[in-house]
Amino acid sequence: MKWKRSERLVDMTHYLLEHPQQLIPLTFFAELYQSAKSSISEDLSIVKDTFEERGIGLLVTVPGAAGGVKYIPKMPEAAVREVMQELLKDLSHSDRLLPGGYLFMTDLLGNPELMNRVGKVFASAFCDKEIDVIMTVATKGISIAHAIARHLNVPVVVVRRDNKVTEGSTVSINYVSGSSRRIQTMVLSKRSMQSGQRVLITDDFMKVGGTMNGMKNLLEEFDCTLAGIAVLVEAEHLDERLVDDYYSLVKLQEVNEKDRTIALSEGNYFSKGGNER
Amino acid sequence: MKWKRSERLVDMTHYLLEHPQQLIPLTFFAELYQSAKSSISEDLSIVKDTFEERGIGLLVTVPGAAGGVKYIPKMPEAAVREVMQELLKDLSHSDRLLPGGYLFMTDLLGNPELMNRVGKVFASAFCDKEIDVIMTVATKGISIAHAIARHLNVPVVVVRRDNKVTEGSTVSINYVSGSSRRIQTMVLSKRSMQSGQRVLITDDFMKVGGTMNGMKNLLEEFDCTLAGIAVLVEAEHLDERLVDDYYSLVKLQEVNEKDRTIALSEGNYFSKGGNER
Repeated sequence: MKWKRSERLVDMTHYLLEHPQQLIPLTFFAELYQSAKSSISEDLSIVKDTFEERGIGLLVTVPGAAGGVKYIPKMPEAAVREVMQELLKDLSHSDRLLPGGYLFMTDLLGNPELMNRVGKVFASAFCDKEIDVIMTVATKGISIAHAIARHLNVPVVVVRRDNKVTEGSTVSINYVSGSSRRIQTMVLSKRSMQSGQRVLITDDFMKVGGTMNGMKNLLEEFDCTLAGIAVLVEAEHLDERLVDDYYSLVKLQEVNEKDRTIALSEGNYFSKGGNER
Repeated sequence: MKWKRSERLVDMTHYLLEHPQQLIPLTFFAELYQSAKSSISEDLSIVKDTFEERGIGLLVTVPGAAGGVKYIPKMPEAAVREVMQELLKDLSHSDRLLPGGYLFMTDLLGNPELMNRVGKVFASAFCDKEIDVIMTVATKGISIAHAIARHLNVPVVVVRRDNKVTEGSTVSINYVSGSSRRIQTMVLSKRSMQSGQRVLITDDFMKVGGTMNGMKNLLEEFDCTLAGIAVLVEAEHLDERLVDDYYSLVKLQEVNEKDRTIALSEGNYFSKGGNER
């Protein structure tokens, strides 16, 4: 069957969106659609222009015999700000206040549409950082980790607090949790990572950074490199933090349990250069 | 700016894929692209034909003033079989064998591309079942739950074993775990669900069905209805199971720890009518 350009454009768009960060040879499309490479090139330049015009992402063409085309999810600044503003608005409701100055965020972490956009924001910041693995700690960071992973096309590994038989052989470390200063344990399956991999760590919330620091130590046990840290909400913290190089989308400045007010501001995403490339 | 058809097709495809199971009025596209509704209708019929031809999904048009168009992710049988075959092949490697006859599956659950397809398989089976919420239990079911949720456009709620301050007020139940016959606890944030919601339960593995049954009891506490059960791998089980109406993709028939062999077969997805509609 010979495909029309209009049909090719629809199918190609779907294929590229489902295969982010993968180099696809032009011959793949040429054979799939029984079309000349020159037609495929023209199709791709329409897709590329539309993706850029509409802030969907970049389409990078690699020339030569081993070349092809690669879709890189990349959000423009305005769309990132929109995600931030939505988070700030959502999180400021006083009924999110929990005893101890915590914020209820579980509903946001369970919203697939919002998580998809949060994932794309962080994937945009790390799209050229050659991330091999995304690491998070159970339970609440998992949805963010998977959302980023989908856009970067890399696996997720989940650190646990306990040792489960289904994880096989594991590596475990002890670390000091930031706020409570208690000794805690982190466990990760030995097969999760290979030495030399570049790891992006993510979590939903960070205060002192004890958990992040624990994960950092854990990846050293695997001879892996920390490639970046992405956190949804960071809490204002006056003392020195255990980690300092991270991106956040929201900053929780103050919680007043008596007046039931929550003070929030934009995280450091832009000030740390998350939108540059 | 006036859009060309080719550009509209690319952008429309992206928009529809990012907004599954949502009714989008034709006027939305007409205003966005500064085009006549008749042109938008023609665009949509190209998208619809290509989506169906290529097994991407259905495009349903609802006529009338309150009408519009809705993208329904739906995988054709051949693509579902491909996912199953990939799982069967991957899971049959003897190095997946763990003490006690368990299988190592964590890497598959952390693979975003595979999980996306697994999610689409289950979302296809439940695309007209009016699911409101997807429920799973921490930790391993979370990636499957989010993958399904993205295609059905509904929130995920995660049942925990422990009570965390960040969950706010919770409802907890005790249940008997299937294999070990131990009394265990399940905890779910009170704000997770509203009464009357239709809930799809999912997990990565099921043997006797104790955990599934626990979640079933838990959703009764919320006056919610069980709308279906989706499980990645079910283990052969001779005695009566605690739940019987479920879809599985893979069946683990036998594990021989001495010979280090794993016997697997297709799950009940097709025999239970997962691909009908």
